[in-house]
Amino acid sequence: MVVALCGGVGAARLLRGMEQVVGGPSITAVVNTGDDTELFGLHVSPDLDTVMYTLAGLVDDERGWGLANETWTVMDALDALGGPTWFRLGDRDLATHCYRTGRLAAGATLSEVTAELCRSFGVGPTLLPVSDDRIRTVVTLRDGGDVPFQDYFVRLRHAVPVSGIRFDGAGSATPGQGVLGALEAAATIVVCPSNPVVSIGPLLAVPGVLDVLRRRRDRVVGVSPLVGGAALKGPADRMLVELGGEATSAGVARGYADWMGTLVIDTADAGDAPSVEAAGLRCVVAPTVMRTPDAAARLSEAVLASLDGP
Amino acid sequence: MVVALCGGVGAARLLRGMEQVVGGPSITAVVNTGDDTELFGLHVSPDLDTVMYTLAGLVDDERGWGLANETWTVMDALDALGGPTWFRLGDRDLATHCYRTGRLAAGATLSEVTAELCRSFGVGPTLLPVSDDRIRTVVTLRDGGDVPFQDYFVRLRHAVPVSGIRFDGAGSATPGQGVLGALEAAATIVVCPSNPVVSIGPLLAVPGVLDVLRRRRDRVVGVSPLVGGAALKGPADRMLVELGGEATSAGVARGYADWMGTLVIDTADAGDAPSVEAAGLRCVVAPTVMRTPDAAARLSEAVLASLDGP
Repeated sequence: MVVALCGGVGAARLLRGMEQVVGGPSITAVVNTGDDTELFGLHVSPDLDTVMYTLAGLVDDERGWGLANETWTVMDALDALGGPTWFRLGDRDLATHCYRTGRLAAGATLSEVTAELCRSFGVGPTLLPVSDDRIRTVVTLRDGGDVPFQDYFVRLRHAVPVSGIRFDGAGSATPGQGVLGALEAAATIVVCPSNPVVSIGPLLAVPGVLDVLRRRRDRVVGVSPLVGGAALKGPADRMLVELGGEATSAGVARGYADWMGTLVIDTADAGDAPSVEAAGLRCVVAPTVMRTPDAAARLSEAVLASLDGP
Repeated sequence: MVVALCGGVGAARLLRGMEQVVGGPSITAVVNTGDDTELFGLHVSPDLDTVMYTLAGLVDDERGWGLANETWTVMDALDALGGPTWFRLGDRDLATHCYRTGRLAAGATLSEVTAELCRSFGVGPTLLPVSDDRIRTVVTLRDGGDVPFQDYFVRLRHAVPVSGIRFDGAGSATPGQGVLGALEAAATIVVCPSNPVVSIGPLLAVPGVLDVLRRRRDRVVGVSPLVGGAALKGPADRMLVELGGEATSAGVARGYADWMGTLVIDTADAGDAPSVEAAGLRCVVAPTVMRTPDAAARLSEAVLASLDGP
């Protein structure tokens, strides 16, 4: 059994490759919910949906999120009304949010709703929200003010410097049903190439998660989200620097060193290997850019093989 | 100035006719919000929307509600997910609910949101929710159990007998901004041919409304929603009988007699005129079926002329 710690697009792509290698039923994905937001009263779970749509084979591969062949009737009409449309929700995507919000209002947990949606979408791996409790990532902007994560990420296009991040609710959140058990039982725990701060960070902030990871450190293997010092998508590189870290795979290794035994870094960063190992991690060098599902499958093989290496 | 007390479809059609006669700016519509509901977290105001879409010239005339040339992408996708789709929300209609819900969440009142939407849709008359406070019509079914109004009306297709109606929240609601002032100042107060129990009832249940109507009884003229003892649309006829009344225009007159001076009844019910007058109302007989906007305009003329009659 493989358990993956997941953000959105990068994680989804790695999981799609991994499903080819070990099969969906062998994979459990623990997914970030700090990005969740309420739009017009609808509960939107961007990372869960990105992973779900990708594994269902329905994602818009160009964008990396949302559904392929989507229509935008609702957003266009909302735009005509002068409503806020900076967070674009496609018509069929809206159905997912309507379903989720309705079930949550009826008393279902996010874990239950996620399982229902995954069944409807024919998703093979098991997707577990890191918690059923409300966690909300809040970004402190360097120029002042706290904004909800999606305001930073989408509305402000993550183009403004940040000075702090916090995960409201995480510290008192209970891990989602099955999360700790899956981590305990996993043969391999894979940390996906997601933003260390705002995608993996909220998972680590839920009480109990870090304890298991520390105890199982030798079974934890990560994939660095940085290639040549840059994030392929999103603000991970700038964010790491703005928060006092270093936008390199070695910097990522130092952040994870306490609870991760092995880090896979891109061939472009092979020169970082000594620094990764100096941080106390085994370092594996492999192509990490997942331009195609096949590339993702090969990366998955490298990740899974890394723990059985010399 | 004409002030109309409104439910949904029947009211919307009369108002469309009245706008032709006196012009939009001379009309203020006080609209029922007891039918309002939350679907998937979205605030839906069926009567406000029916009136708004009709006056914007955008209503689906066949159905009487919703937008013409509507698409149903979201509902179809929700249906595929096994979600509840008994309350069908069209794609462009959903944009209205998204806008409203977002603005309400941001602290706007329903009155303010309604004004914004009406401006966007180019609606001439002023639409006032009867209250900005939450009012919810609850239907007690004869076979037991209380259900929210839309469950009775849409999900159960108003095909089950009722034994009671109540308007939760109405008794402690504050009249919407401008409602009492408009009623005080109106040259004519028109009670639209809406369901007396569940469309007009919630308006009367808001403290202050009935007082003004009683005081201005001679300026209040209603249009009976019954033709030949039957409601043209909806369950008004059965509901009146089930709640111990009578499904005739005379029955409607008796229910309104305390605060209405004149009732317009359909030519098919001319024989009811003596009973209407016995209830203490002046009775005007006119064609009340509004198959076309022109028919609605002629009815409006008859309604407005009725107060200046002999």
